[in-house]
Amino acid sequence: MFRLDELVAHLGGELVGDPAVAVRRVATLDQAGEGDLAFLANRKYAARLADCRASAVIVAPEARELTALPRIVTADPYVYFARVAQLFNPPAAVPAGVHATAAVEADLPASASVGAGASVEAGARIGEDVVIGPGCHIGRGVTIGAGSRLHANVTVYHGCVIGARCILHAGAVIGADGFGFARDRDGSWIKIPQVGRVVIGDDVEVGANTTIDRGALDDTVIGNGVKLDNQIQIAHNVRIGEKTAVAGCVGIAGSTVIGARCMIGGQAGIIGHLSIADDVVVSAGTLVTKSIHRAGVYTANLPVQPHPEWVKNFAHLRHLDSLVDRIRALEQGLDKADPTESD
Amino acid sequence: MFRLDELVAHLGGELVGDPAVAVRRVATLDQAGEGDLAFLANRKYAARLADCRASAVIVAPEARELTALPRIVTADPYVYFARVAQLFNPPAAVPAGVHATAAVEADLPASASVGAGASVEAGARIGEDVVIGPGCHIGRGVTIGAGSRLHANVTVYHGCVIGARCILHAGAVIGADGFGFARDRDGSWIKIPQVGRVVIGDDVEVGANTTIDRGALDDTVIGNGVKLDNQIQIAHNVRIGEKTAVAGCVGIAGSTVIGARCMIGGQAGIIGHLSIADDVVVSAGTLVTKSIHRAGVYTANLPVQPHPEWVKNFAHLRHLDSLVDRIRALEQGLDKADPTESD
Amino acid sequence: MFRLDELVAHLGGELVGDPAVAVRRVATLDQAGEGDLAFLANRKYAARLADCRASAVIVAPEARELTALPRIVTADPYVYFARVAQLFNPPAAVPAGVHATAAVEADLPASASVGAGASVEAGARIGEDVVIGPGCHIGRGVTIGAGSRLHANVTVYHGCVIGARCILHAGAVIGADGFGFARDRDGSWIKIPQVGRVVIGDDVEVGANTTIDRGALDDTVIGNGVKLDNQIQIAHNVRIGEKTAVAGCVGIAGSTVIGARCMIGGQAGIIGHLSIADDVVVSAGTLVTKSIHRAGVYTANLPVQPHPEWVKNFAHLRHLDSLVDRIRALEQGLDKADPTESD
Repeated sequence: MFRLDELVAHLGGELVGDPAVAVRRVATLDQAGEGDLAFLANRKYAARLADCRASAVIVAPEARELTALPRIVTADPYVYFARVAQLFNPPAAVPAGVHATAAVEADLPASASVGAGASVEAGARIGEDVVIGPGCHIGRGVTIGAGSRLHANVTVYHGCVIGARCILHAGAVIGADGFGFARDRDGSWIKIPQVGRVVIGDDVEVGANTTIDRGALDDTVIGNGVKLDNQIQIAHNVRIGEKTAVAGCVGIAGSTVIGARCMIGGQAGIIGHLSIADDVVVSAGTLVTKSIHRAGVYTANLPVQPHPEWVKNFAHLRHLDSLVDRIRALEQGLDKADPTESD
Repeated sequence: MFRLDELVAHLGGELVGDPAVAVRRVATLDQAGEGDLAFLANRKYAARLADCRASAVIVAPEARELTALPRIVTADPYVYFARVAQLFNPPAAVPAGVHATAAVEADLPASASVGAGASVEAGARIGEDVVIGPGCHIGRGVTIGAGSRLHANVTVYHGCVIGARCILHAGAVIGADGFGFARDRDGSWIKIPQVGRVVIGDDVEVGANTTIDRGALDDTVIGNGVKLDNQIQIAHNVRIGEKTAVAGCVGIAGSTVIGARCMIGGQAGIIGHLSIADDVVVSAGTLVTKSIHRAGVYTANLPVQPHPEWVKNFAHLRHLDSLVDRIRALEQGLDKADPTESD
Repeated sequence: MFRLDELVAHLGGELVGDPAVAVRRVATLDQAGEGDLAFLANRKYAARLADCRASAVIVAPEARELTALPRIVTADPYVYFARVAQLFNPPAAVPAGVHATAAVEADLPASASVGAGASVEAGARIGEDVVIGPGCHIGRGVTIGAGSRLHANVTVYHGCVIGARCILHAGAVIGADGFGFARDRDGSWIKIPQVGRVVIGDDVEVGANTTIDRGALDDTVIGNGVKLDNQIQIAHNVRIGEKTAVAGCVGIAGSTVIGARCMIGGQAGIIGHLSIADDVVVSAGTLVTKSIHRAGVYTANLPVQPHPEWVKNFAHLRHLDSLVDRIRALEQGLDKADPTESD
C-alpha cells in the first residue's frame, strides 16, 4: 500500500489531486477498481479514462486534463507503470544459506542462497545476495555478480561469467560447447575443443530453456542490459550489444555480431558470421542471411492464406524465373515495332 | 495377455470369430505375428489384410468382411487401437513416498511420489497419486491435480496450477516470467513484474523442454485436453482452448487466444494479440500474423527447391512489385487503342 | 607444451623446419603469437602467412613454400588443427565415484562418475569411464557405452541406449514420449503408449536442451558419428544415418528417415514420413515437405528486405495466381492474330 505522494517521492512525476490516496496494485484502465493505479500508455485508449474506476491513474502531460481522477503526470506512463509495479511486487525474498541437500565446494558470501539439490563446484566466485535455485549446477571457476538470481535447474558450465543483477530462468544452459567440428575425408566430424567462455554483462535476463554456447577460441559475449526470451539458441562467438532484446525461439548462428538496442522478433534466425548494426529491428519469423549495415526494420516472412489459395498461388514460386522470361518476351513483342530497342 | 472377449468387455466393439483368441501386443498389419492384434485404420491399406499374420485385427464396419481373421469391428479402429495399447502398456508404476534425497516442505498425500533430488516448496497442494520425478522443482503454493505425472527435471514456478491426469515431460518449465519490459528513453528495459499464473486444465500433456510463461497481470491458460509437443514456447497471457494440439517447436506470442480443437503444425508461429477461431488447422512452418476468424486450414510456407533453381526463382521476390508494374504497363500497351481505359 | 616432432609422431604430417620448436596453443593466423601453432585452412587467407607471428603453422602441400616458418604439411590443415586442439585441450578429468548426494540403484564400474544430485535407476548398464553429470536422471534399464559423458541436468528415460564416447550436453532429454494420439469423435486425444526406445550410436554429440523422443512401436535411431546442435527436436521413429550433422533449432517430425553424411542447416524443418537421401544439404530455415531422393543442396527461404520494400513486394504473393492469369491473357492478346493458337 503506497500513498500517491510516496510514489512520487520514490519515482518522480507530478502529482495532481489528493496526495493521500492510497493504491496497492497496478491494473489496466478497463480492469482497475478501488485501490488500483491504472495507466494510459497509448493515446488511442484515452476514451477509456472516462469510465475508469481506478483510485488514480498515470498519464502523460498531454493527457493531464483528460481525467478528474487523482493522477501522476510523467513523460512515459508505461515506464512509470513498470517502476510502480516493481515497487508493488518485489521479487520474493529467498532465505540466505545453503540447503542441506546442496553440494557446494566454493566459498560463498553469507548473503547468498543455494537451493535444494544444487551444486557449486570449486573456484566459483559468487557475489553478495546471489540466489542459486534448486537443481542448478554451477561449474568450476564460474563468476556470478552480486544480486543475480538463477531459477531452478539452470546449468552454467565451467569458467563462464555472469554479471550483476541478472535473472536466469529455469532450464537455461550457459556455456555448453559450441557446434565446432572439422570434417574428415570420410565424412567423420572431428571435435574442435571449445575453449572460450560465455561472458554475460550486468542486468541481463535469460529466458527459460535458452542456451548460450561458449566460444571456440574467443568468448561469446552478451552485453549489459540485454534481454533474452525463452528457447533462444545463441551459438559460439556471437556478440550481442547492450540493451538488445531478443524474443522467443530465435536462433543466432556462430560468430555473428549484433549491435546495441536491436529488437529481434520471435522465431527469427540470423545465420553465422554476419554483422548487424545498432538499432536494427528484425521482424518475427525472418531469416537474416546477409549483414545489415543500417538501422531500420527488416522483414522476410510470408502472408498466411487459406490452404487452397496458398496451393494456387505458391505453386508459381517454383516458376518465377520462367514467368519473368514470359514478361520479357511480351515486352519484346510489344516493342518489336521499335528496332532500336534491345534486351 | 487379453482374450478378445475380455477386450470387447472392456472397450466395446463387436467380436467376430473365436472369442478365446488371446493377444498380448498391438502391431501394424505388416509386422504383426502370432499373439498380436493388428488394426486397419486407413482403407488404402486394406490389401494388406490378405497377408496379415496377426492373431486378430481391429476393423471398421465397412471392412468387416475383408478378412477371415478373428476381428473386432468398431467405428474408429485407430481410437480402439490406442485404447488397447493403453491396456497392454499401462504407465510404469512408481512407488509412493518421498525419496531420501528429496526436499519436501509441503504436506503430501501418502499416495504421492517425489523422486531423488526433487524439491517441493511450502504451500504446494499435491493431489492423490501425483508423481513428481527426480530433479523436479515445485514452487511455493503450486497446485497439482490427482494422477498427474511430472517426469524428471520439470520446473513449476510458484503459484501455478496443473490439473488432474496431466503428463509433463522432462525439462518442461511452467510459469517462468513472461517477456515483459517497458523501454526507457535510453533504450534500457524496465522489467514489468509478472504476477499472473499459469493455469493448466485436466488431461493436458506438455512435451519435453516446452516452456509456458506466467501471465503479466492475468493468467496464462491452457484448456482441458490440450496436447503440447516438445520445445514449444507459449508466452504470457496466451489462452489455448480445449483439445487443441500443438506440434513441436511452435512459438505462440503474448496474449494470443487460440480456440478449441485447433491443430498447429510443427515450427509454426503465431504472433501476439491475435485471435484464432475454433477448429483452425495451421500448417507446419507457417507464421500467422493476422487473426483467423473461420475454421479451416491455413498455410504459408515455401516449396523446397534444388539450390540453383531457388537462386534463380527467388531472386525475383525482391522485385515482385516492379514485375507487377511491368505487367500493368503491358496491359496498358495492349489497351492503348481504347482511350476510355485508364489506370 | 608439445614439440613439433612430438605432434608429427602423434598425428602424422610432414615436418619442415626445426623439430624442437615447442607450441602450447592453437590460434588463427591473425592472432597467433609466440608459442602458438597457427593453421592455413583456406587458400584465400594465404596472404596472412607473411605477417604471421606464430611459432609454427599447419599448411596444405600446395602452401608448403608460402612461408619460412617451421611448419607441418598435411592434406587437411583444418582437421589437423582440430586434432592438435584436442591434444592441447583434453576434456577436464572428472574424479570417478558417486557423489554423496546422488541416488544410484544400479551397479556401476569403479571408473564411472555420478555427480551431485543425479539419480540412476535400477537395471541401468553403465560403461567404463562414463561421466553422469550433476542433476542427471538415468531411467530404468538404460544402457550407456564406455567413455560417454553426460553434462548436467540431462534426462534419459527408461530403456534407452546410448553408445560409446558420446557427449550429451546439459538439459538434453532422451526418450520422452513421442507425440502420438488418436483423435476421438468429440475431438479428444487418446494417448498411444510409446513403447519404442531411443537408440543412439557411438561418437554422437547431442546439444544442450535437444530432445529426442522414443519410438511409438519401433525405435528412434541416431547413427554413429551423428552431431546434433542445441535445441533440436527429433520426433518418434525418426532414423538419422551415420555422420549426419544437424544445426541448432531444427525440428524433424515423426518417422522421417535421413541418410548418412547429410548436413541440415539451422532452424530447418523436415515434416514427417519423408525420406532424405545420403549426402543431402538442407539450407538454414528451409522447411522440407517432400522426400529428397538425390544428393545435393536444397533451399527454401526468403530474402530479407527493408520492411517497406517487403510490404510492397510481398503483398503480391497473395495474388500470384491472378498475375499469372494476366500474363497468360497478355500472351493471348499478342497471339490473337494467329487463330490456330488456343489456350
